[in-house]
Amino acid sequence: MAKEITSRQADYSQWYNDLVLKSGLADYSDVRGCMIIKPYGYAIWEKMKQYLDSKFKETGHQNAAFPLLIPKSFFSKEAEHVEGFAKECAVVTHYRLKAGSKPNELIVDPSAKLEEELIIRPTSETIIWSTYKKWIQSYRDLPLLINQWANVVRWEMRTKLFLRTSEFFWQEGHTAHATRKEAETEARLMLQIYADFMEKIMAVPVIKGVKTANERFAGAVDTFTVESMMQDGKALQMGTSHFLGQNFAKAFDVQYLDKQGKLNYVWATSWGVSTRLMGALVMAHSDDEGLVIPPALAPIQVVIVPIYRNTDQLSEISNAAEKIMADLKKLEISVKFDNDDSKKPGWKFAEYELKGIPVRIAIGPRDLANGTMEVARRDTREKSIINMDGFANEIKSLLDSIQQNLLQKASIFRNEHLTTTDSFDEFKEIIENKGGFISAHWDGTSETELKIKELTKATIRCIPLDNKLEEGACIFTGKNSKQRVLFARSY
Amino acid sequence: MAKEITSRQADYSQWYNDLVLKSGLADYSDVRGCMIIKPYGYAIWEKMKQYLDSKFKETGHQNAAFPLLIPKSFFSKEAEHVEGFAKECAVVTHYRLKAGSKPNELIVDPSAKLEEELIIRPTSETIIWSTYKKWIQSYRDLPLLINQWANVVRWEMRTKLFLRTSEFFWQEGHTAHATRKEAETEARLMLQIYADFMEKIMAVPVIKGVKTANERFAGAVDTFTVESMMQDGKALQMGTSHFLGQNFAKAFDVQYLDKQGKLNYVWATSWGVSTRLMGALVMAHSDDEGLVIPPALAPIQVVIVPIYRNTDQLSEISNAAEKIMADLKKLEISVKFDNDDSKKPGWKFAEYELKGIPVRIAIGPRDLANGTMEVARRDTREKSIINMDGFANEIKSLLDSIQQNLLQKASIFRNEHLTTTDSFDEFKEIIENKGGFISAHWDGTSETELKIKELTKATIRCIPLDNKLEEGACIFTGKNSKQRVLFARSY
Repeated sequence: MAKEITSRQADYSQWYNDLVLKSGLADYSDVRGCMIIKPYGYAIWEKMKQYLDSKFKETGHQNAAFPLLIPKSFFSKEAEHVEGFAKECAVVTHYRLKAGSKPNELIVDPSAKLEEELIIRPTSETIIWSTYKKWIQSYRDLPLLINQWANVVRWEMRTKLFLRTSEFFWQEGHTAHATRKEAETEARLMLQIYADFMEKIMAVPVIKGVKTANERFAGAVDTFTVESMMQDGKALQMGTSHFLGQNFAKAFDVQYLDKQGKLNYVWATSWGVSTRLMGALVMAHSDDEGLVIPPALAPIQVVIVPIYRNTDQLSEISNAAEKIMADLKKLEISVKFDNDDSKKPGWKFAEYELKGIPVRIAIGPRDLANGTMEVARRDTREKSIINMDGFANEIKSLLDSIQQNLLQKASIFRNEHLTTTDSFDEFKEIIENKGGFISAHWDGTSETELKIKELTKATIRCIPLDNKLEEGACIFTGKNSKQRVLFARSY
Repeated sequence: MAKEITSRQADYSQWYNDLVLKSGLADYSDVRGCMIIKPYGYAIWEKMKQYLDSKFKETGHQNAAFPLLIPKSFFSKEAEHVEGFAKECAVVTHYRLKAGSKPNELIVDPSAKLEEELIIRPTSETIIWSTYKKWIQSYRDLPLLINQWANVVRWEMRTKLFLRTSEFFWQEGHTAHATRKEAETEARLMLQIYADFMEKIMAVPVIKGVKTANERFAGAVDTFTVESMMQDGKALQMGTSHFLGQNFAKAFDVQYLDKQGKLNYVWATSWGVSTRLMGALVMAHSDDEGLVIPPALAPIQVVIVPIYRNTDQLSEISNAAEKIMADLKKLEISVKFDNDDSKKPGWKFAEYELKGIPVRIAIGPRDLANGTMEVARRDTREKSIINMDGFANEIKSLLDSIQQNLLQKASIFRNEHLTTTDSFDEFKEIIENKGGFISAHWDGTSETELKIKELTKATIRCIPLDNKLEEGACIFTGKNSKQRVLFARSY
């Protein structure tokens, strides 16, 4: 079975779709804009969830579940939020179907019209803050540190598997604090947890920054972001953490009594990452042969493929494989032995390359005789022969080194695609041909930002948190600027 | 703070609501019929999920995610399914809001009407089987063993926290098999996994059985069920596992090529348990003082409350508590030390009884001097003094014995509330006054079953799987019967 994957060179977007579909990560559904996450993709998402969930809990957060449906009027309560979210959304207007005139036909029962329409949540600030009003009375109720793992719906016209779908999965943290400082610290802490996850576990280097007013979350005072660079030179926003100030507290009248008996509005944050990370993972590491999954997220880290001519040989290899599996499992390495007799080794090699299994072990009769095995790593596709004696620790080191190599490779690529320029002609040329991030001076106005977007399709991805202050002239207007910002075209 | 919990005697239903709300398991939301699962409730649900998920995976199932929204026409494809599910459901008719004429007003954009309405899934057979048609071609694709953890919406007119809500959380397994026998075995295997979970982990004894045609899942050939008995004498259906025959395969034209190259329809099962189990957990064990959570599901198994007069004493007790916690954590016992200075020990005792923490340890200066601690178990509310030497193993045994005691207590209650009768007058008297299950003969007709329901509000909960065949006369019509079935009023 040929893999039939379009090469990145030929059509990057088609390469991505081919990978996601053919490796078994996901599938299109019969519902416009909604995808199906297949078992292999879901197993990776579960690993992402497990890691993040444990970090949320370590930092004092608890999970809860708020309703899927939000009354329409809730969206009107925070003025900016209305603008940002109450647009393309799924609207529930009725609560009953009834039999139509044709056999098995169903029609919407006009008598079952809701008094107020319900919106499938595009994000949950409004329903959560209307609840927090009931839960928060005193400083003793603070901080309130809650997260939920949920599905949300934003009606998207142009969808792309994982990266932009009408329904998607995410976690959304919503916290309430007594002081501004505490809320700001929380927003930055969660951004750091995201950044650590992306670099250590996903092996995707990120730049932490703050969004400009144009790109800010609707209702936030500050939106912090983690941005990464994909292989086609486009940036991808990996996650955001918002300092919401007192906007939602005021919109929903959430005040607490402090120790002095005085009423104050609480301070808030919200933060989220989504199944979009699955798309980032695919785009960051994979190649024309298939996925490349970092060991820390691979549902199967090692696959063993037997090479044999007859059942006697298979049986001997199976015995050896049992021992190998037992040794690997002791080191908490997940391993699969593929003894499917209906497929040739070559087919299996291609299949596991497609699926991005980090390490493949092949064992044939000669290996058994020599006490060796052939080990292939997916990232570099290098093969080596190693001894069965003490192989398990060697495999463990190999997995560690693959994990590191992926981050390093992605970091080198990202650094090579971060260009500093002071000329707008060069800016346009880079955006058009090389892609990547451009570090340039900007006069700080939304007007200039939008003009640059109009001319180049590049937006300001962020103002990096570790920015050096530096006098300069805006790349477009020549006006004074105190620091460079990062521009890029993005997903 | 008084707990103000209505007693079971005074008002069982109010007792239940009080417990759920005041212990922090859940809250009402601003959306009709939808509840909020609060952190304490969600932590228990997560433990349920973890256990079940590991059992599903051990038996070869994989998780995936299918769309929340289902095209209306899908429900018409399986004739019985239409009847059962396409009634009270949330209907999405539009995909956009726009600004109204008043400030911040939002109205549904009439130009954004969907060509075909979408239904928020009440269950996912239809969308999943329309997908399986694409995934299943050959016997090599079988069995297909998939589960999803999801939210579903069924528009309920009369709701009750956890037990009946418009939105609820569940898992739904959907499997496809080459043979009838394999699918039947699967349906029974999953029922057994549910039963084991309920008895070993929830400490709730269940009766496994099969539903009558009246109570069968819409589209199933056989619905297997696990039924339990609540403290008010009403039965609760804890979970169901359906053998679907080839109904959905035929409705969605899912055929596979067997080894002989012949096309066959596949055989199917589906099975699910939901957040309703949380309601069962509360109702099965709790008392007028609050929740009683079995140790296997308690987010906090042991709480330590210091008894002190001054900060010196608190500091000494804290040192001892640190050691106690370390020792308990070594045995994987979850423990909390409550050194909140703003609450009295009496308040804390009441609070942890309300929350159903299985074991409470109290330590005062005299305990420190004697090398002892006071241990109170939540289930029997018995207190004892134990030595600090080797206390950890003693606590572990105590947790085990609480777990066993809860199951035993619930089993005794259930057995006392399972009455065998051959007289319909007695039947009516038992249903009205004692409640519980009634084991009685039935002539096997839907007509009789419905008549009995009309007269007594009791339904046939199940025909137990381990039933002895026994000649008898139907309790209502006197017609021939070959076995007894279980009647009860139910949630």
